[in-house]
Amino acid sequence: MANEFAIIEQYFSTIGKPMEDTVLGIGDDAAVVDIPQDQQLVVSMDTLISGTHFPPDTSPADIAYKALAVNLSDLAAMGASPAWFLLSLTLEESDDRWLTQFANGLKQAADLFGLQLIGGDTCKGKLAISIQIAGYVPRDRFVTRGGAAVGDIILVTGELGNAALGLAQRKGEVELPETLRERCTLALNRPQPRLELVPFLRECASSAIDISDGLVGDLRHILDASACGARIARGALPVNAWIEQHDCYDYALEGGDDYQICCTVTASRLAEIERWNREHPDCRLTAIGEITGSGYSLSDGDQLVDLAQRQGYRHFD
Amino acid sequence: MANEFAIIEQYFSTIGKPMEDTVLGIGDDAAVVDIPQDQQLVVSMDTLISGTHFPPDTSPADIAYKALAVNLSDLAAMGASPAWFLLSLTLEESDDRWLTQFANGLKQAADLFGLQLIGGDTCKGKLAISIQIAGYVPRDRFVTRGGAAVGDIILVTGELGNAALGLAQRKGEVELPETLRERCTLALNRPQPRLELVPFLRECASSAIDISDGLVGDLRHILDASACGARIARGALPVNAWIEQHDCYDYALEGGDDYQICCTVTASRLAEIERWNREHPDCRLTAIGEITGSGYSLSDGDQLVDLAQRQGYRHFD
Repeated sequence: MANEFAIIEQYFSTIGKPMEDTVLGIGDDAAVVDIPQDQQLVVSMDTLISGTHFPPDTSPADIAYKALAVNLSDLAAMGASPAWFLLSLTLEESDDRWLTQFANGLKQAADLFGLQLIGGDTCKGKLAISIQIAGYVPRDRFVTRGGAAVGDIILVTGELGNAALGLAQRKGEVELPETLRERCTLALNRPQPRLELVPFLRECASSAIDISDGLVGDLRHILDASACGARIARGALPVNAWIEQHDCYDYALEGGDDYQICCTVTASRLAEIERWNREHPDCRLTAIGEITGSGYSLSDGDQLVDLAQRQGYRHFD
Repeated sequence: MANEFAIIEQYFSTIGKPMEDTVLGIGDDAAVVDIPQDQQLVVSMDTLISGTHFPPDTSPADIAYKALAVNLSDLAAMGASPAWFLLSLTLEESDDRWLTQFANGLKQAADLFGLQLIGGDTCKGKLAISIQIAGYVPRDRFVTRGGAAVGDIILVTGELGNAALGLAQRKGEVELPETLRERCTLALNRPQPRLELVPFLRECASSAIDISDGLVGDLRHILDASACGARIARGALPVNAWIEQHDCYDYALEGGDDYQICCTVTASRLAEIERWNREHPDCRLTAIGEITGSGYSLSDGDQLVDLAQRQGYRHFD
């Protein structure tokens, strides 16, 4: 069986387009990179565990793609552009077919999003993928969770709940029409990190987060960090027609894995939001509510549902 | 049970001394750092899996310390100084006592070696610790595996084989005298990353690697990257008296987990090596052989043992 060094050399030595900032890539004790002088480095790390973050029978290419995409989603939420990443891959065994497919999925995502694999390691154990990602942001132009202010509009990209619905379909909990099934499976396995939104976020957003654990829980992080409240409207949530017809908004409110961006913008930016939507129909922003001084609630027709105790997905609950 | 966000906030929000380069630390989608203008960034990532990289009954504080130390060892081998790190911690369950001890061990190591935890995540699964580490090196002063040249002296720090001997003792394979047992257990659980050697490496070394998988295998990486050979002398290996008396040099040649540095230096630097050893008795360099044009062998008295096919520790064999 191939050993750790052979695996890295064979499958992972040329993933992504070589960056001019990479002084030394894969193959030594560490990689060496230059950081452009006017940029700050934005760094994040996320681990995906088989059975927790993806169904064990997910294809190796989808696992690789998703592992990179969820990390890219963190960069997007900060207003950062991708630069490079490190991979730590834990495998039960060295399986050539699996590794080839995994490396292909990783290469596809790295090429698509324009970043280079510069280092990492492989270990033996239950399947897990740790990726550490780095991106650039012009000095002090990053966006945090902490800048939302009373009166700001709360926006989300795309549709919410599709990934959770895709998982429910996979588990046999729902039966979706065929075209929607494909869309939801794609949302689950091939989430689109919203990197195209980065210029808008840098220019307009007072705060941002990526929705990985469900809207209600993730928006709460913005409220906690910004010391404010929010009211969102159920009727405003961008959901597919099936969720609307079956009245199952919990997929959108509490489902995980959407990797859309939730951000806040002052009301004076309305014209910029409209312009963004005209020019970017594939990354449409929908206003779902506004920032308030305190409280956290969902208006649902005449009712007001308290969200203060509702949670998104939690790994340790 | 505490959730993922509570765990990070409670245990990991203040590990290590805050750096002035940290613009945004733990608590957002990503961290933001400034990189000093005249420095290059050196990055590495290593995962430790319970049962593979440490015995499952290792204390949480030792696990945390070791996870950081092995990553620091990679920085040292590159001639880099520590800056910051990210942690991805996979846990079976959220156990307050375990987490407190783990965080204490991590804090102790971060304080000792002068670097800050700036981000990461926690997941549910079999115990594993991924650390991504970053350090600085003045522009183009890093040391690689690829610069060894014929005639260079091969040096190693400290004693070899102690960690492997500590593991053998733990498994009941050997019975060591009490003082040596302590020394070997410490070598196994609390490896000393050789950061003090960084100035010497930058100044004098033509190549360097840290010995994580055994001397024979790790020196081979230098030979492969430098396209040369080596002859080392068994009698020159720095080992404890027990290994010498019991003639079990395999602990030193092929045992893992030593985290000493193996480096090469041109013979014209002999005076600097002697001066280093006078001034740094705790990080003594021992000459164990020299770089040759081809071949890889160990001289053992009158015999010459071919090392070409001998391996260090491999995870997937």
